Amino acid sequence: MSSGSVAIFEEGPREGFQSEPPGIPTSQKIRLIEALAATGLSEINCCSFVDAARVPQMADAETIMAQLHRLPNVRYTGLWLNLKGFQRARASGADMKAVLVASASETFGLRNNNKTRAQLIDSQRALGSAYKDAGIDRVAGYVFTAFGCNYEGAIPVSNVTRSVQDLMTLGEECDLSFETMVLCDTIGVASPNGIARVIDAVRDRWPELDVALHLHDTRGMGMANALVGLQLGIRRFDASVAGLGGCPFAGNTAAAGNICTEDLVYLCHEEGFETGIDLSKLIACGLMAEEIVGRRLPGKIKDVRSL
Amino acid sequence: MSSGSVAIFEEGPREGFQSEPPGIPTSQKIRLIEALAATGLSEINCCSFVDAARVPQMADAETIMAQLHRLPNVRYTGLWLNLKGFQRARASGADMKAVLVASASETFGLRNNNKTRAQLIDSQRALGSAYKDAGIDRVAGYVFTAFGCNYEGAIPVSNVTRSVQDLMTLGEECDLSFETMVLCDTIGVASPNGIARVIDAVRDRWPELDVALHLHDTRGMGMANALVGLQLGIRRFDASVAGLGGCPFAGNTAAAGNICTEDLVYLCHEEGFETGIDLSKLIACGLMAEEIVGRRLPGKIKDVRSL
Repeated sequence: MSSGSVAIFEEGPREGFQSEPPGIPTSQKIRLIEALAATGLSEINCCSFVDAARVPQMADAETIMAQLHRLPNVRYTGLWLNLKGFQRARASGADMKAVLVASASETFGLRNNNKTRAQLIDSQRALGSAYKDAGIDRVAGYVFTAFGCNYEGAIPVSNVTRSVQDLMTLGEECDLSFETMVLCDTIGVASPNGIARVIDAVRDRWPELDVALHLHDTRGMGMANALVGLQLGIRRFDASVAGLGGCPFAGNTAAAGNICTEDLVYLCHEEGFETGIDLSKLIACGLMAEEIVGRRLPGKIKDVRSL
Repeated sequence: MSSGSVAIFEEGPREGFQSEPPGIPTSQKIRLIEALAATGLSEINCCSFVDAARVPQMADAETIMAQLHRLPNVRYTGLWLNLKGFQRARASGADMKAVLVASASETFGLRNNNKTRAQLIDSQRALGSAYKDAGIDRVAGYVFTAFGCNYEGAIPVSNVTRSVQDLMTLGEECDLSFETMVLCDTIGVASPNGIARVIDAVRDRWPELDVALHLHDTRGMGMANALVGLQLGIRRFDASVAGLGGCPFAGNTAAAGNICTEDLVYLCHEEGFETGIDLSKLIACGLMAEEIVGRRLPGKIKDVRSL
């Protein structure tokens, strides 16, 4: 008996490898991406089209896209932060996952993007027009720090709804609709109560929105938060194979990675949801990710040999 | 606004250190136990009164009990498996946490205790009488493998209720009542659905029982399972500081430790429950546990420096 389907957006090759020290061979990244695609995952974030001088880990974005052997029915996407990155992504042949972002915490927005809330929205107007010009009608909205911020602490729910409203207005101005609105626990501070409070507030106001969760396991609440999401009808999550991501340097694990994809898939299957993903193959990917980075990664299911 | 109180039974010094290679100095064990007691934890499992030839890690049980500086209002308990162990525990001055056990999986009972279901219950009749003779009226029941077994796989809920019934009958025969009935996810295979199904079945039949959960984080579901417990009204959990426990040898992490005490306390506090525990002090204990065993332990909250 199925409770329905859950869609998972794999973030490991992008958010994960971007957090590693530079030097992971392109061939190893491609090997992991191809293995992930073979598990049944439908959408994989493969790289970032960002400044290679500042983020040398992602300097091979175009090479990855060029050399990747693709399966049908899998979207191989990349991240960009501005118009230049978007143009690089299009030229690379990446599948388009067009994104508009907002930060519920103004301080986080200033520190992370060097922009006030208004500036962050304004700066994306050109991007929104470029999407439209490129024939893109539907985008994903990302609301950063929706559940708390390391600078501002607790984030009022009204800040989150304000950010969603900012994005909805921007979308209208650019004639774009939202295929999903991703609420991000950017620093991994959310707890189940907070997850429920924010989801309820967004749903109350925009019942038609397909709300998704982007969770980090910094405080060990990742799977409990995902469960609350499932209980509240969330059917779309970002996750990272083996929990890849965060800072690998000792003592600075405060920046933990996304929740582990294979653990999330296990939870979904156990709770009666379909994911279309072969868990055994995904576990093999988790072990491959550990081999590539050369250390143990936080996901749990992969450590269970007898599964 | 408080949602009520949650009681936590700290298992680290017992279940945790028992899983480590022998050689942890008694003074270090005592140091951790005393630090744990100072956090506000009300009940700490300090050692096992078992055969030192077979479990050399616990050979210092009496020494620990003799040398420990105790705080009032803290129970310093120990584990035993038979009459001889019980007598050693009493003589040691340990606070009495008398236990009767059953295994929902007959195969697990055979492998772990070398006894059939009937034999396991029969073997505890003398123990029950000894409890009574010692002036003990109330005991804790432990049902092992209540959510699945590595030998039998899925465990029917009827096996769990049968085990609870076995214990209730044994209690009646010995004129003992149960202060709690602890449902154990012995091998860490439970998922939220299963937790709910088993709790509901036990509650339906014995609504007066104070059901508790003993969870392992083998598959990363520990905190999600604890959350479901809280949602269903469970107010008593076993946990292990820093997630101490399980097998530390590479590749055999399938035997992961109990859920991490400080992560569980964080969850409880965030969900509005009181625990009486000072989280900052408990985090310091988690870091102390890592220092003692000389490696990183799985708990997450302790890694967040800025908490």
